[in-house]
Amino acid sequence: MSYAEEEIEIEVPFFDLDPMNVVWHGNYVKYTEIARCKLLEKIGYSYPEMVRDGYVYPIAKMDMKFIKSATLSQKLLIKASLEEYEPSLKIKYEIKDIQSKDVIFKASTMQICVDAVSRKSLYDAPQGLKEGLKCLSIS
Amino acid sequence: MSYAEEEIEIEVPFFDLDPMNVVWHGNYVKYTEIARCKLLEKIGYSYPEMVRDGYVYPIAKMDMKFIKSATLSQKLLIKASLEEYEPSLKIKYEIKDIQSKDVIFKASTMQICVDAVSRKSLYDAPQGLKEGLKCLSIS
Amino acid sequence: MSYAEEEIEIEVPFFDLDPMNVVWHGNYVKYTEIARCKLLEKIGYSYPEMVRDGYVYPIAKMDMKFIKSATLSQKLLIKASLEEYEPSLKIKYEIKDIQSKDVIFKASTMQICVDAVSRKSLYDAPQGLKEGLKCLSIS
Amino acid sequence: MSYAEEEIEIEVPFFDLDPMNVVWHGNYVKYTEIARCKLLEKIGYSYPEMVRDGYVYPIAKMDMKFIKSATLSQKLLIKASLEEYEPSLKIKYEIKDIQSKDVIFKASTMQICVDAVSRKSLYDAPQGLKEGLKCLSIS
Repeated sequence: MSYAEEEIEIEVPFFDLDPMNVVWHGNYVKYTEIARCKLLEKIGYSYPEMVRDGYVYPIAKMDMKFIKSATLSQKLLIKASLEEYEPSLKIKYEIKDIQSKDVIFKASTMQICVDAVSRKSLYDAPQGLKEGLKCLSIS
Repeated sequence: MSYAEEEIEIEVPFFDLDPMNVVWHGNYVKYTEIARCKLLEKIGYSYPEMVRDGYVYPIAKMDMKFIKSATLSQKLLIKASLEEYEPSLKIKYEIKDIQSKDVIFKASTMQICVDAVSRKSLYDAPQGLKEGLKCLSIS
Repeated sequence: MSYAEEEIEIEVPFFDLDPMNVVWHGNYVKYTEIARCKLLEKIGYSYPEMVRDGYVYPIAKMDMKFIKSATLSQKLLIKASLEEYEPSLKIKYEIKDIQSKDVIFKASTMQICVDAVSRKSLYDAPQGLKEGLKCLSIS
Repeated sequence: MSYAEEEIEIEVPFFDLDPMNVVWHGNYVKYTEIARCKLLEKIGYSYPEMVRDGYVYPIAKMDMKFIKSATLSQKLLIKASLEEYEPSLKIKYEIKDIQSKDVIFKASTMQICVDAVSRKSLYDAPQGLKEGLKCLSIS
């Protein structure tokens, strides 16, 4: 059970491949970010809203498991699920091959809400994030 | 106590920064890779030797902790330490600000040795890697 | 008049932004590559076919004009047009904002077909590329 | 004859390689940026000084010639030369293999000084840049 979920599709571009002809492991961080941004957009509390409210939400921890390799033009489904939003934002990620449904990659991130001016960590989620989640759970 | 260690220095380039004017979190994967490659070079068993011997050494797991942010032209010291080489290669990383010695980032990677032809995992480290480590411990 | 054209859409991701909050100039090279790959797929002669036929097609020249900046989540239309295929592959690119139709960026690339074994440049386009273009002009 | 020159060395990292085992062409943009930043630091007018004075200096044009390929751990010498500073900043780049002195890559960039607030282009170089160049020519 997660508070909110979003799925996006990507097609592996040439410039993400390494000499083994597979996606270089560091590029999965980009794939998780695209899915996370879409999840936060769905909640209605993404980067522009954070900036407007005076918050930053840096990644404090990220764990990645590389299960299978992916190659040129492979179509991937990236799911991001919000697992926790207080005291920190915990998001899980799963990447599957769209055709075979094979799991390619799993990850999780933990983000801490920080006041952009005082640089203090906040343990309550921003009001805008909580309201966005409430709207989403009703709809 | 680690089997082998290596340290490198980098200076944060402009293209690694994000709109918050700090290193984008995904770029730390690159910094760890530079240090890991130098550690493996020191051991005498890096990418060209693996290819020659018919092995690949994909990253299977990577965990990252982002402790402080880093910004333009900041000089960073990146240490990679080999913690384990059988049945898998475990390397720890620590990034410090060169001046203040503040710890910026910590990470660990786990790599599994795979036969490039059979695609089977190997639990014994390649002979070349073990010999390299032996030479290093004597010197 | 071009021999073949293809258009793709992208949405600017966070990790492509620089401290000025706009797409870092080097990332446009990625956008052109995505469009070029789709154009070559449409022709039916992309990276896997080149490898199969024993050719590589390195970029020899690239010129870029940065006209307007692009920012987070902006939707861009990237057009790639094949201008010439013998003795070299010349492709033009234009990036527009999808909504305003403002031109953001223009570029051109020149690629030379090289025999992967002999490393010699070829001045005739590969047969597969010419046949793909013929099919496309008929359809 | 150029107004100022700077040279830097880099060693090609694994993550810059593509499936052909050579540096992916878009990564040369990063190499030029590292050299350009060092050239501007030498002049004493780099990114922090521009921000302080209220200017931005976006790249308006960039032309690249890819002459030879570069591969893992290859040591490259990157030279940036200031060719013009008014009405626009023109910098030339040349990348050589450190050992063989073979030229790998050439490029040029053109940047326009823009007032960060009014967004107007300036045709006179910032005072700080001109003074930096004067100091450099005397020393």
